Amino acid sequence: MVPKVVFGQGCFDQLGSILAPQRKDKAPFIFLVDDVFKQNKDLLDRIHLRFNDKLLFVSAEEEPKTTQVDQIVKDIKSEFTYKPSGIIGIGGGTVLDLAKAVSIMLTNKGSAADYQGWDLVKNKAVYHVGIPTISGTGAEVSRTTVLTGPVRKLGINSDFTPFDQVVLDPELTIGVPKNQWFYTGMDCFIHCVESLNGTFLNAFSQSYGEKAYDLCKEIFLDEGLPDEESRGKLMMASWHGGMSIAYSQVGVAHAMSYGLSYVLGTKHGIGNCIVFDHLAEFYPKDVALFKKMVKQHNIDIPTGLCSNLSEAQLNTMIDIALSLVPLWENALGEHWETIMTRDKLKELYIKM
Amino acid sequence: MVPKVVFGQGCFDQLGSILAPQRKDKAPFIFLVDDVFKQNKDLLDRIHLRFNDKLLFVSAEEEPKTTQVDQIVKDIKSEFTYKPSGIIGIGGGTVLDLAKAVSIMLTNKGSAADYQGWDLVKNKAVYHVGIPTISGTGAEVSRTTVLTGPVRKLGINSDFTPFDQVVLDPELTIGVPKNQWFYTGMDCFIHCVESLNGTFLNAFSQSYGEKAYDLCKEIFLDEGLPDEESRGKLMMASWHGGMSIAYSQVGVAHAMSYGLSYVLGTKHGIGNCIVFDHLAEFYPKDVALFKKMVKQHNIDIPTGLCSNLSEAQLNTMIDIALSLVPLWENALGEHWETIMTRDKLKELYIKM
Repeated sequence: MVPKVVFGQGCFDQLGSILAPQRKDKAPFIFLVDDVFKQNKDLLDRIHLRFNDKLLFVSAEEEPKTTQVDQIVKDIKSEFTYKPSGIIGIGGGTVLDLAKAVSIMLTNKGSAADYQGWDLVKNKAVYHVGIPTISGTGAEVSRTTVLTGPVRKLGINSDFTPFDQVVLDPELTIGVPKNQWFYTGMDCFIHCVESLNGTFLNAFSQSYGEKAYDLCKEIFLDEGLPDEESRGKLMMASWHGGMSIAYSQVGVAHAMSYGLSYVLGTKHGIGNCIVFDHLAEFYPKDVALFKKMVKQHNIDIPTGLCSNLSEAQLNTMIDIALSLVPLWENALGEHWETIMTRDKLKELYIKM
Repeated sequence: MVPKVVFGQGCFDQLGSILAPQRKDKAPFIFLVDDVFKQNKDLLDRIHLRFNDKLLFVSAEEEPKTTQVDQIVKDIKSEFTYKPSGIIGIGGGTVLDLAKAVSIMLTNKGSAADYQGWDLVKNKAVYHVGIPTISGTGAEVSRTTVLTGPVRKLGINSDFTPFDQVVLDPELTIGVPKNQWFYTGMDCFIHCVESLNGTFLNAFSQSYGEKAYDLCKEIFLDEGLPDEESRGKLMMASWHGGMSIAYSQVGVAHAMSYGLSYVLGTKHGIGNCIVFDHLAEFYPKDVALFKKMVKQHNIDIPTGLCSNLSEAQLNTMIDIALSLVPLWENALGEHWETIMTRDKLKELYIKM
């Protein structure tokens, strides 16, 4: 779990005093910042680079890749003699996952792809701080960093993955485009649905999942919730939703969304929405609620993505989805393979 | 925050594998165990002492004291050449607070009394593990360890206070006497009421406080909740309630209960109940709910404790209560002194 967190409007400005005691002589802090902030002078002025600190803009256009992690690590190693004092990720789920993975790969040999899986990381990561600028993914609190690698889309799940410090400042989420706000918020909603309806559920996950689920309903269904309150609540929903799946597991939507993303590069939030829209068979009450939210916020959920895929592409998609055994076990129980056959998956995918 | 936690029926048996990587050569683990378990062979058989590990039974009859912490630290230092590998607290709030304080005082000079306050601890504590056997205090998750010292009842609040690891096994709470179950559960309920009605509230504390509050209502008002489910839920309510006040503050009941405890030695849980019963003026809805719970579970709330106190005792009680400035500010706002005068406090105390 994340050992330190600050929360509050404007708490981003505490970053300097949070980092100061972590600074090691000659060792820079590396700030990985979502490149949507490239022109945001207000935010950039509040990031105080000192000594040889470096700010790297990273694109979140695509899902994070192991090759991207390896490249950033290589660049840092070739520019600096000393191992960084810390990595600070400022952005959405993609940037946060990159920051976590880079901090791990600065102290572990080989490629990030070697560590996709559970508990494969040997050495403690470099100190790393997560600062979400969009809420829903739970990446700020999770024990994983989901990466697309050469053969799979899978997280680096380890005790060394979680951030050492998280800064939750709801003000930073001002300005997120409406569609993206919705898709990412639904990532959280779907985490809760999958956790609460899973066979891995226990009282720990349930309490976090129920709270995040209730917050999502409040945020996306209650009209008249003030923006400021809504932002704070969505940031907390993301946090609790992340905690819920950290101690249980996700389910059908995430497994299928990983397949979609691997083959088509679909971003995670929108991918989950595309998939979830067709899962009434598995989560009837919550898919109905989801459709209500989509309608209320006038959101566009893309369709027809898979209708023209080749047989080979569909097979890869199905392979990737089926490889996520713990997700299926959680969703459908130990005999999941009798329910979610290749044919059944194909039938679902081609509707999307 | 607590960086590592396991949860589940029977997860207590993971303790051996949790501790193994933390063991340092020649340095023992010290188990501080509530002496109610002295005759509990089943539990004791599950604590595996290895090498020079030591089990110390501690009494939770009285609220934990700074002198008690100092004595335990002195005993450990005189018996062992090497600083312990870790301190493991197994018990209720008293034992958990003792374990936290001992782990701090093994690496910091002087008396525990020197560190009562906020952020006075200089050095990182010895590795420490908390294992609650009764739910409600939130001591397993809090950043404080509340101690009665020579001049005050106040916590050691520091970044080094929280446990490094918590083991949440609801099975361990089987056998708690009904009154104590209720009093300690109400400690949690009152945490939530004070946090949710306080001026320090933010979306972070609110989300945790609301969840714990809802769980308490379910546990103490819904009839027919199965015991096993109820135990798991109360353990989580304690956790979330503790998180809520960690990022906000408690209020009137806790301030007054500290005074009661300092002068009369009243245990914390029952002390909170005695006080809260008379606070309808400050928390009308929730005191009504509390009275309903008391009635439903046929609980005895003592009365007449303060009716025969000397003027000097009452004055000390009032001094202790009034010294807890942040609690009053949270409960009544910055002009709290105009509301909670010495006379007002006296009027409330003598009713108890």
